[in-house]
Amino acid sequence: MAEECKPILNTGLRGVTIASTRISDVNGKEGKLVYRGYLVKDLAEGASFEEVIYLLLYEKMPNREELASLKADLAAVRALPGEIISALRTRPQDALPMDILQAGVAMLAHHDPDVHEEGSRDAALRMGIRMIAKLPTLLAAWERIRTGKSPVEPSPDLGHAANFLHMMNGEVPDEELTRFFDTCLVLHAEHSFNASTFAAREIASTRAHMYAAVAGAVGSLSGALHGGANTRVMNMLMKIGSVDAIDDYIRNEIETGGKIMGLGHAVYKVDDPRALILAPMSEKMGKRVGETRWYDISEALEKKAKAAFRKHKDMDIFVNVDFYSASLYHSMGIPRDQFTPIFAISRIAGWVAHVLEEQFAEAAPKPMLYRPESEYVGDYCGPEECILESIDKR
Amino acid sequence: MAEECKPILNTGLRGVTIASTRISDVNGKEGKLVYRGYLVKDLAEGASFEEVIYLLLYEKMPNREELASLKADLAAVRALPGEIISALRTRPQDALPMDILQAGVAMLAHHDPDVHEEGSRDAALRMGIRMIAKLPTLLAAWERIRTGKSPVEPSPDLGHAANFLHMMNGEVPDEELTRFFDTCLVLHAEHSFNASTFAAREIASTRAHMYAAVAGAVGSLSGALHGGANTRVMNMLMKIGSVDAIDDYIRNEIETGGKIMGLGHAVYKVDDPRALILAPMSEKMGKRVGETRWYDISEALEKKAKAAFRKHKDMDIFVNVDFYSASLYHSMGIPRDQFTPIFAISRIAGWVAHVLEEQFAEAAPKPMLYRPESEYVGDYCGPEECILESIDKR
Repeated sequence: MAEECKPILNTGLRGVTIASTRISDVNGKEGKLVYRGYLVKDLAEGASFEEVIYLLLYEKMPNREELASLKADLAAVRALPGEIISALRTRPQDALPMDILQAGVAMLAHHDPDVHEEGSRDAALRMGIRMIAKLPTLLAAWERIRTGKSPVEPSPDLGHAANFLHMMNGEVPDEELTRFFDTCLVLHAEHSFNASTFAAREIASTRAHMYAAVAGAVGSLSGALHGGANTRVMNMLMKIGSVDAIDDYIRNEIETGGKIMGLGHAVYKVDDPRALILAPMSEKMGKRVGETRWYDISEALEKKAKAAFRKHKDMDIFVNVDFYSASLYHSMGIPRDQFTPIFAISRIAGWVAHVLEEQFAEAAPKPMLYRPESEYVGDYCGPEECILESIDKR
Repeated sequence: MAEECKPILNTGLRGVTIASTRISDVNGKEGKLVYRGYLVKDLAEGASFEEVIYLLLYEKMPNREELASLKADLAAVRALPGEIISALRTRPQDALPMDILQAGVAMLAHHDPDVHEEGSRDAALRMGIRMIAKLPTLLAAWERIRTGKSPVEPSPDLGHAANFLHMMNGEVPDEELTRFFDTCLVLHAEHSFNASTFAAREIASTRAHMYAAVAGAVGSLSGALHGGANTRVMNMLMKIGSVDAIDDYIRNEIETGGKIMGLGHAVYKVDDPRALILAPMSEKMGKRVGETRWYDISEALEKKAKAAFRKHKDMDIFVNVDFYSASLYHSMGIPRDQFTPIFAISRIAGWVAHVLEEQFAEAAPKPMLYRPESEYVGDYCGPEECILESIDKR
């Protein structure tokens, strides 16, 4: 039946403006990313992840009291219910960390009384804050459990970034490491209608609760074309192995129609502004740990790949957020398959802001459930004939 | 900041054709629903759910051998890993069944070796068949566990519908009950780009695996405006309580701007063809169990509400799939909060077909990741001023 049909067409809604938002602006032409009016490059320099959470959720920068209050709120709800730890202990050691995270988010809903508070913005915000606070604990607990260690309890005395590294590694990080990790969280927090955020909004549009929406977003982020790309960049760097091997690698990829992971983006037509911040961080962190190989390969690969694509394919390609975060996370001692979950513990701030906007923004008309149309290009079958054939064959 | 901005606009992609598909056609004007060329009303009469699964996944009606082979494949993989049962036993009794289902789908990924087979259609299809087979087991196991009973093992000798009812209730259903439930599964199996299917496709478009996509779809289906509506129809029928109370109920809803659950649909501009099949089934099932009250209320409510909306609001409203499925499921002895999970164990067939189409349909260009644009309607803030303000306030 399929052979005679028209081809399947699907352009992924590229270039189609489907909604307005007050959360962020991605200017792909100029390479500018703005959260609630603030350039991300300024936030990366001057603001902590907690300030960015506040900014995204409450639509303004916090003053000192507001920030202290949010920090206390987050610290108070970091711990996981014991039943979640018990459930994690039933999970196979080789499960993919993003799959654990998706299951974990869905399970957290079982313990939150606010899932029963249908239609309440306050309940949705409380769920969002709990999730932002608990996701790092979940991720770190799984890393400990799968490596045969005991989970580390969250520490209320540490900030969001330092507490996560402490729970992950069992030791309190120094100021430099904390600051670098915090900046990574700031840079990944929000990016308008990217695929995972769109998934969260799509799910939230049915009036499903915050956990249901975020679990979907985690699923979307796990894909190789989205958040999964940072792990794949590191796999590529390891496959290349040395600066000397770059030319051969690029030649082979161009000849076989392959692509260089971490180069190219759905929206940016210039270098990703986040990559420009992450590149020097990767270099510094490499020097700090005495291994600049991965940064060196990244830097040379970027230059050579850009030149090669220009020469052989007559096209400009640009570096995206995943390209330098890979070597940076690696230098920080984070396991490769945890790179994408770490993306999630930052992007959760954006997801929560978008779910709130989708469900509760003052708008007329009220935002509707996403229900696009599709064109049927399959065959039709006369009813009698079809069913007779079917019954006959049973 | 927010007050000065332009209003948020979001029309839920209504009327926007975003892709072509060979899976199903919803003709909202004529009230026709077609799966792969077959009218659903003919399938409901002449085909089993297993035949519909085959039709959706393999794009044609099975012959006798093909059907037997699929039935054997499904029966062979119905059982849950023991670790999933252990994990379910850690879950709080009052968790929402749809939240359990979402977590359960995500956890099943942890046990499936095919999640590591990136980009393989065969692996995706295997995962899909496993999920179609296991979802009823998961749902029934949770129903047993939360009510303090032992899960019932799946029986390879029973068909999909009978096996589910057996696992749920602990007794093998008779032929009539089995056939009614099977027809419900056929009717709910597929509905083009509805919100949950769109969520599955959106997640799959990032090349996330089948479980990640379906877990997102379950989240989307849980929403009050989507699959959650059938539970809400039953809540409404119980609130009304008797045919005599219908007039007051309608008047109150119209006066307060409320709505009648189960009436109205995003696509149909006539009565939903599935509702026309479900209504007489609900009546028969009510008679069978000696309680026609819920059918009687439904029938009278439909007539009176249609007349009232025409008279007072000058609008035609139409009955949708949830309106009569509520009283039907209730007569079958299914708990109210399991109505939506039951929707899921049918729609999973459509979700799997759509994920396969999204990721593997022959198409040029190859389907892209969904990445729509949004219009930023928030404020902008000069960088120095913003950050100085921020730093100043810390």
